[in-house]
Amino acid sequence: MSTRPEDAFEIEEKDLLGRVGVLETRHGRVRTPAIAPVVNPTKPVLQPAEIASMGFDLLMTNSYIIKRSHGSLAVELGVHGLLGVDTPVMTDSGAYQLMVYGSVDVGPREILEYQISLGSDIGVILDIPTRIGIPKGQVEREVEETLRRAEEAAEMDRGGMLLVGPVQGGQFLDVVSRAAARLSRMDVDIYAVGGPTQLMEEYRFEELVRLVMAAKMNLPVGKPLHLFGAGHPLILPLAAAMGADIFDSASYVLYARDERYITSSGTLRLREMSELPCSCPVCSRLSLEDLRDLPKQERIVELSRHNLYVLLEEVRRIREAISEGRLWDLVRGKAALHPSLRKAFSVFARYVPFIEKYHPVSRPRASGIHFTTPLDRYRPEVYRYFKTLAERYKPPPRRVLVVIQETADKPFSRFGWISLLLRAICREGLYRSVHLAVLSPAYGVIPLELDGYYPLSQYEAPRDLYLDYGTLSSDVAWYVANSRSYSRVLLIHYDLPPALIEEVERKVRGLGLEFFRLRAVPDREDIGRVTKTVGLLVAGL
Amino acid sequence: MSTRPEDAFEIEEKDLLGRVGVLETRHGRVRTPAIAPVVNPTKPVLQPAEIASMGFDLLMTNSYIIKRSHGSLAVELGVHGLLGVDTPVMTDSGAYQLMVYGSVDVGPREILEYQISLGSDIGVILDIPTRIGIPKGQVEREVEETLRRAEEAAEMDRGGMLLVGPVQGGQFLDVVSRAAARLSRMDVDIYAVGGPTQLMEEYRFEELVRLVMAAKMNLPVGKPLHLFGAGHPLILPLAAAMGADIFDSASYVLYARDERYITSSGTLRLREMSELPCSCPVCSRLSLEDLRDLPKQERIVELSRHNLYVLLEEVRRIREAISEGRLWDLVRGKAALHPSLRKAFSVFARYVPFIEKYHPVSRPRASGIHFTTPLDRYRPEVYRYFKTLAERYKPPPRRVLVVIQETADKPFSRFGWISLLLRAICREGLYRSVHLAVLSPAYGVIPLELDGYYPLSQYEAPRDLYLDYGTLSSDVAWYVANSRSYSRVLLIHYDLPPALIEEVERKVRGLGLEFFRLRAVPDREDIGRVTKTVGLLVAGL
Repeated sequence: MSTRPEDAFEIEEKDLLGRVGVLETRHGRVRTPAIAPVVNPTKPVLQPAEIASMGFDLLMTNSYIIKRSHGSLAVELGVHGLLGVDTPVMTDSGAYQLMVYGSVDVGPREILEYQISLGSDIGVILDIPTRIGIPKGQVEREVEETLRRAEEAAEMDRGGMLLVGPVQGGQFLDVVSRAAARLSRMDVDIYAVGGPTQLMEEYRFEELVRLVMAAKMNLPVGKPLHLFGAGHPLILPLAAAMGADIFDSASYVLYARDERYITSSGTLRLREMSELPCSCPVCSRLSLEDLRDLPKQERIVELSRHNLYVLLEEVRRIREAISEGRLWDLVRGKAALHPSLRKAFSVFARYVPFIEKYHPVSRPRASGIHFTTPLDRYRPEVYRYFKTLAERYKPPPRRVLVVIQETADKPFSRFGWISLLLRAICREGLYRSVHLAVLSPAYGVIPLELDGYYPLSQYEAPRDLYLDYGTLSSDVAWYVANSRSYSRVLLIHYDLPPALIEEVERKVRGLGLEFFRLRAVPDREDIGRVTKTVGLLVAGL
Repeated sequence: MSTRPEDAFEIEEKDLLGRVGVLETRHGRVRTPAIAPVVNPTKPVLQPAEIASMGFDLLMTNSYIIKRSHGSLAVELGVHGLLGVDTPVMTDSGAYQLMVYGSVDVGPREILEYQISLGSDIGVILDIPTRIGIPKGQVEREVEETLRRAEEAAEMDRGGMLLVGPVQGGQFLDVVSRAAARLSRMDVDIYAVGGPTQLMEEYRFEELVRLVMAAKMNLPVGKPLHLFGAGHPLILPLAAAMGADIFDSASYVLYARDERYITSSGTLRLREMSELPCSCPVCSRLSLEDLRDLPKQERIVELSRHNLYVLLEEVRRIREAISEGRLWDLVRGKAALHPSLRKAFSVFARYVPFIEKYHPVSRPRASGIHFTTPLDRYRPEVYRYFKTLAERYKPPPRRVLVVIQETADKPFSRFGWISLLLRAICREGLYRSVHLAVLSPAYGVIPLELDGYYPLSQYEAPRDLYLDYGTLSSDVAWYVANSRSYSRVLLIHYDLPPALIEEVERKVRGLGLEFFRLRAVPDREDIGRVTKTVGLLVAGL
């Protein structure tokens, strides 16, 4: 019988596909999203105990290297004894070495048994990482072999060790999807997406998103997902938003050896820096000059420490953002830093029909939504609103639709100019003849009677979202076409770009409706004139 | 005779209107941009010596409070003795108390002499801060009095103390401009913009930008500028981009008292947090639970420390960004975090004709420009390019303009499909009959013979910038109108949005030119067909 906890993973908070959770291992709990620093078992740059004391819940080391250097001696000590820590430890299998060197002198069953005998908390099967540039036939054969090994591992008694099953397939997304679907039926504790290191090193973040999403959409959503080799702060929030829970990375020391200093917005070369823009214990203790003057080996140690502090901070920031429902904003902020990341974010956003299914409906600390880019139109809340309109909303049967440009006062029906207009229209007995709606650059058309529902009034959007003429005019056309009852549309605006109005007009007329526009100043004075125009439109039917 | 250094301020690096500099004071050098934590002289929450040891070059305290509590005793000790530091100290004059309480029991000359006798490194005149909501007549009278006091102070012998002259006027930008222009003719060492605290507290960042820019544009650019009360990490990069060099703030302790935890993207309420997303010495030593369990007074102390570390990190990050020419990206990243800030950034961007004058032309570590939002069109480099086109560029006298949608290969004339097309057109003997240009969502139209100039080939832009139909089509129209020689335009594209093409066509035809479009796949195969079309267009003239 296995002693593994049945539900080793518990999810506490959700945001997009990301979650804050706890993974139970034999050596304690790991808060996720977690980053596991990779520790060289024979010559660590920083002592594993020091890394654990910094606040990392999980360490990663390599069972293949341990086996080759220490063999059965290590089994006596156990991996925790060898590293000198009580923290949960994950062991890799040599698959990375397999990818780099082409072969390893150990069998898949052998290395898995070795990991179990080391007392590893989380072990990985010896999968075959998909390299980029390999023909599809070969990729399929290798994926088949990985799945066979996963199957075999899933049937072994692995004691209390949690088993990681990686999804391979690289750029062949159909292969990735099928591999994930098959793996999801096996008794695996943690799923993983394999081989994206090269994609990340080359900033091919768009492909990374497609790869991870192809796996994620075919795996059990509630199980933890590991992303191999994601050690760059730029990509971590997006990876978490795709539902990745655990990252491992040797980046802190690889960058340190290359004299590179990690910051939350990218890496800097030590020789090009003018001071240390950080307040971690290393950078609070040393100046840039101090750091540069250190002997090379000590400099690598201090840089590694600093790099780890930044990674830890980033992971904590992600957990905090998920708990507060601000993960989208965090990812968007990162995306503004680099075009490749922005493209990747824009690819990710297109998965909103899937994301929306798992995104929480409301949350205790929900604050308003801040729209700042056209991509915000892909937020799950917006998609959910359109879905609701399409599937569940029936507008009242009116022939005249009056669309009013949004004002800053929300909810529109209760405050400000739009509420005054609403009252005047009621007073004139026109309410049963027209349907009132708001034109919002965030949500498109909002029927006035819905504006109290979250988050239709809890948003802020800058004016330049109006520049996206195509989307906004299509929203109006879609809304009009979806309702089917209107025959006339009146657009009341105060400062919409003329090209947007023209585009709305073109599309509305294209649907066979009459279109009218009225420019009005949103103040009390203009209400009479607007109401009169509405009256004329109703009378003229 | 004054012992003040003639050029107390030296600028080392520039970016936008921001600069990294050094301010020389009697107690040493202050690296700018600098933030001066405000220290209460009678009951400091953190010892001034500790704050200095954290890495702050400048402290700020209040001479009015010192005078009232310690009087002449403080003069014996000096402000440095009183605070127990050797760090440069700036003293405020009681103007803030004047703003809050309506009056102070000290005269302007008296408090200035007191600051001098305290041995303050930087002293402020007792100006009259403009409150918001005061009628213009009163503001003008108060500004007049502030200027009179500045005049008087400028003529005093102030020993080695640097004198700060604040520009007042608040929301009346004409008053602000005139006050700045008059102040700029006085013998003042540091200029300041007064009274924006309220604007910042209420997130009225747009108004803040208008206020600071109105002052900045009328002050000597090379002199240091202080911004009173800017203690929020959200606004610091934008403030630095407007040319503010020194900030003071009590925010670290005010937020701490309110149980608020500063992060680089805003403040969090301690009770709503789930962990500490930071690696400063405080957050490396304490967990969130530890912090919450501390007695209130100790919690305020630890929170204040943390808040200071974040502010220091932010200022260092700004200096680093300026040195690397990445300040725009830093401000843009912040702007993505909050709509009010985004609006403010967009207002700031509109000052590009002024900003461009001071923005460096090239820089040693210049990397490519990453376009991610339509606002990037207001980068000084883009504005400078348009100015050059308008003022100094004469296209060759051709009647056919061929505009080709950009590809990823840059410079276009040397790599990839566009270079192949160029060669084919030369081979066919068409080069003297047509003018080739690239349509870039970043720069509009780039004549192919210019594409080697920095930064016309050193950029990356995402496809969704094409969504800004209005701007891009206007760029083409402007370029065509500006050149005057063309009578036909051929647009070669592979995946432009149809609405953009239509808009370009409409505008080009509106100028009386013929317009043709050709969809082509950017590969070798299609070159023949494209070249043939170009040939037909030339022949058909």
